[in-house]
Amino acid sequence: MTLEAGQPVTGLAPLLAELGEVVRTDQAALDEARADKSGHVAATFPLAVVEARTVADVQATLRFASEHGIPVVPRGAGTGLAGGAIGSAGEIVLSTLRMNRVLEVSLDDELAVVEPGVINADLNAAIFDRGLWWAPDPASRAISTIGGNIATNAGGLLCVKYGVTREAVLGLKVVLADGRLLELGHRTVKGVTGYDLTALMIGSEGTLGVIVEATLRLRPLPKGVPVTVKAAFPTVEQAARASSVVSASGITPAIMELLDAGAVRNIATHLGIDLGDGSLLLAQTDGVGAAEEAASIAAIMRSLGGEVELTEDADEAKRLFDIRRAFHPSLQALGTVLIEDVAVPRSALPAMFASIERIAAKYGIEIPTVAHAGDGNLHPNFVFDAPEIGGHVDVPDHVWAAADEMFLDCLRLGGTLTGEHGVGILKKRWLRDELGDDSYALQRQIKQVFDPGNILNPGKVF
Amino acid sequence: MTLEAGQPVTGLAPLLAELGEVVRTDQAALDEARADKSGHVAATFPLAVVEARTVADVQATLRFASEHGIPVVPRGAGTGLAGGAIGSAGEIVLSTLRMNRVLEVSLDDELAVVEPGVINADLNAAIFDRGLWWAPDPASRAISTIGGNIATNAGGLLCVKYGVTREAVLGLKVVLADGRLLELGHRTVKGVTGYDLTALMIGSEGTLGVIVEATLRLRPLPKGVPVTVKAAFPTVEQAARASSVVSASGITPAIMELLDAGAVRNIATHLGIDLGDGSLLLAQTDGVGAAEEAASIAAIMRSLGGEVELTEDADEAKRLFDIRRAFHPSLQALGTVLIEDVAVPRSALPAMFASIERIAAKYGIEIPTVAHAGDGNLHPNFVFDAPEIGGHVDVPDHVWAAADEMFLDCLRLGGTLTGEHGVGILKKRWLRDELGDDSYALQRQIKQVFDPGNILNPGKVF
Repeated sequence: MTLEAGQPVTGLAPLLAELGEVVRTDQAALDEARADKSGHVAATFPLAVVEARTVADVQATLRFASEHGIPVVPRGAGTGLAGGAIGSAGEIVLSTLRMNRVLEVSLDDELAVVEPGVINADLNAAIFDRGLWWAPDPASRAISTIGGNIATNAGGLLCVKYGVTREAVLGLKVVLADGRLLELGHRTVKGVTGYDLTALMIGSEGTLGVIVEATLRLRPLPKGVPVTVKAAFPTVEQAARASSVVSASGITPAIMELLDAGAVRNIATHLGIDLGDGSLLLAQTDGVGAAEEAASIAAIMRSLGGEVELTEDADEAKRLFDIRRAFHPSLQALGTVLIEDVAVPRSALPAMFASIERIAAKYGIEIPTVAHAGDGNLHPNFVFDAPEIGGHVDVPDHVWAAADEMFLDCLRLGGTLTGEHGVGILKKRWLRDELGDDSYALQRQIKQVFDPGNILNPGKVF
Repeated sequence: MTLEAGQPVTGLAPLLAELGEVVRTDQAALDEARADKSGHVAATFPLAVVEARTVADVQATLRFASEHGIPVVPRGAGTGLAGGAIGSAGEIVLSTLRMNRVLEVSLDDELAVVEPGVINADLNAAIFDRGLWWAPDPASRAISTIGGNIATNAGGLLCVKYGVTREAVLGLKVVLADGRLLELGHRTVKGVTGYDLTALMIGSEGTLGVIVEATLRLRPLPKGVPVTVKAAFPTVEQAARASSVVSASGITPAIMELLDAGAVRNIATHLGIDLGDGSLLLAQTDGVGAAEEAASIAAIMRSLGGEVELTEDADEAKRLFDIRRAFHPSLQALGTVLIEDVAVPRSALPAMFASIERIAAKYGIEIPTVAHAGDGNLHPNFVFDAPEIGGHVDVPDHVWAAADEMFLDCLRLGGTLTGEHGVGILKKRWLRDELGDDSYALQRQIKQVFDPGNILNPGKVF
């Protein structure tokens, strides 16, 4: 049976009967669910999108899918960058975006209990007045869900000081492939009863279960006035070296972002401002020692050839970070983009930037790159032109070849193919190379334990 | 075949031939390997103790054990408090204590690569001059190995601010039950390629594999002068409430330890000093804001009825924390002790202390208790007298009943049965109660994936 968007799906009748309007099969819903923010669009449409409102909706969907052997693609706001939540022919997309209640905030225990569809920034707005925040801050935080942040173990700008998502989750409720509800983790800060299935679930990209509730570890808002340091460098190697020296100096900035000349040029054009010809390094310190730490950072950057500005003004800081945030929008004007996400040990940042420059020249591709320099996580963006067919764009062979070469350089430098975006479908071609055969096989067996029928996001990650 | 210590073990001949003097079967080695620091001693002796020097020794032992279906008990320094590394009849104890080289320290990448037998404090002594430290600080840090810290996901006094062991490990090399060497994790701060098997391995208590190398995340040493605050309270409820209020105030002390009146009384007797009749709360702040934070903590404690002393003097601080460190030695004079390790949400600390007082009265048992109050982790110590038979002491039924009741109260308060010691053999009777049947079954299946022959530490945890 070939299925097209909008066509009544008789096989889903029992699920429609059980869940009613929660199950959407209209063209708009199916079209949206076959894409994410990676630029990748599936060539076909999924069977349906279930917009779950309750844990029971999720359980009913998974019981139905298990019984009929129908693949299920768990999905939040669809802001992923690796194609991990894209639905295609024969699949049900199970969205938890409508499960968006904050169930509890405890000031005393510094925790929040939330449904998975709560938008990251919405939670932070809701708890700001109580002097608390949830630290994970992916660039998508204004539009991405906490469930999605957990499913991908999302990173962001603040990880070097405040950790990744895994370090900000105490417990989870998860629905298994067969519809059983599982409770994992603790409300306590410590807990070592058995294997850490909470950590196993974080970053599993919808392949082990569907997150329906999360107990989050909150932090007190940093005290004092944040200080922002901007430094312009003639070359990206100088900027990368400066960031490595800052890291090695024992100072931990809350944020340290590096933009190479290609990224700076595109942003300047996009914003219609002059940002010079070189690379930029942006750092921010916070907490009671912010001013002292920022002064040390500025001194290091100056001594390594940077032209430095330093500000405690919130508006000026916002203006500086808006430059960084304009990176992705600035690329949209250039054509299609393959967004990469390699991470290397911090000391290897200069070498990784040199590799990217070399590969860009060899393949004649523009690869504007930004990096969360404080934790060695780079986002090289391979820009290319390719015909769009039915909303779908194929990455040309020479771009894959360039990405292949970059990934090999990254591994050689002790790095990893994805620092924070996840594997999804766009990086699974390299997963086995990084993990090795034994580790890859063990991961497949763990998948089998949780999802023996292989209905949860099959074809993603592995 | 019944085996006794010292008796030549013919079945082990091929292993003896392969590994030579690395395999010990003398009385002293076997006797030591049937106990740990929990006070529990196995009633029988293990077959042999393999004192591995190399990864190849570990692999040879596991290949031999797999081939012959012999259980293997991985072990470090034997300082565990839950019986997780105790060997008994028919088992090979595989010690990695002699694998104790620091293989690499990178200042630039803030990481160290170590063998598992390196003593926690030895690593920290070796890197102190470079301004770095490894944060996990179990009370046993002067005598426990890093491999053991990882196998139990060890906690300690500094977790509230600096995290548990899981947050301080980037990657592991692990030998599987069949002898294969597996490399997990990254040298990078971020990395989301596939499931987080590193986190799964941390805290798995030797049931999934044998750790033979670890890549550790180091931190810059905190700046400034630490400030120590000591407060005496008439009742433990007042002290517990003060610690809860400090936590809720948004201040994060590096250390916050609570000692109840029973603990204080025993320590005073042991040290021959006067410490008053009440409970003590000890806090320490560090970093650039240390003085300001300590002043706030002192103000809170004073306002809640504490008699407060505050010091920046290192010797005086050491003297105060030596009081805390004398807790375990002070109990040894009292008889046998069942060391518990519950953790509750911080706001439930006063209720948990009330529960312990109630249970102590009901069962007529002394239960002196200390708590890592900043993270809600309590160590109630059930003191009892029981006859020693062949070095082995059975916990009397009424002590188990009291522990049972305490554990149920802990669960009711949203807590967990072990915050940092692990399950081992002493807490496995409660594991299923906390995890629930589904989670328990999944954990067993994961164990099966890694160790299909069930030779790795069988009878521990599950």
